[in-house]
Amino acid sequence: MKKRPMPLSRVYRLLEPGPVVMVTTAHKGRANVMTMSWHTMMDFEPPLVGCVISGNNYSFAALKATKECVLNIPAMNLAKQVVGVGNCSGRRLDKFKKFHLTPAQASLVAPPLIVECFANLECKVVNNRMVSKYNFFVLEVLKAWIDPGMKNPRTLHHLGRGAFMVAGRTIKLPSKKA
Amino acid sequence: MKKRPMPLSRVYRLLEPGPVVMVTTAHKGRANVMTMSWHTMMDFEPPLVGCVISGNNYSFAALKATKECVLNIPAMNLAKQVVGVGNCSGRRLDKFKKFHLTPAQASLVAPPLIVECFANLECKVVNNRMVSKYNFFVLEVLKAWIDPGMKNPRTLHHLGRGAFMVAGRTIKLPSKKA
Repeated sequence: MKKRPMPLSRVYRLLEPGPVVMVTTAHKGRANVMTMSWHTMMDFEPPLVGCVISGNNYSFAALKATKECVLNIPAMNLAKQVVGVGNCSGRRLDKFKKFHLTPAQASLVAPPLIVECFANLECKVVNNRMVSKYNFFVLEVLKAWIDPGMKNPRTLHHLGRGAFMVAGRTIKLPSKKA
Repeated sequence: MKKRPMPLSRVYRLLEPGPVVMVTTAHKGRANVMTMSWHTMMDFEPPLVGCVISGNNYSFAALKATKECVLNIPAMNLAKQVVGVGNCSGRRLDKFKKFHLTPAQASLVAPPLIVECFANLECKVVNNRMVSKYNFFVLEVLKAWIDPGMKNPRTLHHLGRGAFMVAGRTIKLPSKKA
């Protein structure tokens, strides 16, 4: 299904539950993708996201140099790709080809959107003060895309060592807060 | 059931999936508790956790002043308390009493553990460089406790506005990574 732009004020509702994301970068004419679970919302609007990307990852250098990435959110149907992408390096490999992931042009940044993911967040690095000490980047989400047909996505939540909790049912309680 | 100490090397497996946590603080002779979803792992061992606590929260001043807190992880049976605690301030209220939460003495920090939560992480603030700009604290987990009877906890994952995803089933895929 074709994706639609999503209001930036709703981005936190995608990331706050803690799903695994696939991070795309582009550097020196090559796109790459990695899996990532160490992220947190830091502000509502514009949406700020903090994330840790290890210096061992090929994506680290790309993000540091280009200051752009896309956070792509996969559902359970992509579980094999999520683990596969996490188990190898883009240094010598085109992971899009290997894992049959389709790149699509983003609107505001160079790294590609992953078509198979139900949501895509185009980001730029807005603070790198904690990169040297903690590999911690602060990202601003510039543009958000969502598959309007995906109502209750079965997101993946990493429990360590290849185990994932799959998003279960939704409950609703009266709340005064966002 | 009585809790047991948990190896610090396994703490990331509790927080990486993104559960709502209840943060306890103690300041000027009073304990307080708030709910929080904006957190991320930042290192494995010693476990480092980054979290955003709004300056509007009564807990913010306590954490800033005392540099200690406990992250308590609730399961679904505490959903009402999670929302209740999030909907009011500890400024004029004893939330432990109001929500029937039982405080227990921590081993290394002043804020109490919440007995009803299946895991408790005693923390100290190790970096506050991003507190003024982003309300972002870096915590080190000093001591971790877990209820050994809780095998697949139905953690709560906030979707915004009082909606929560309840942790579903677990899947396991071959992985080379932590």
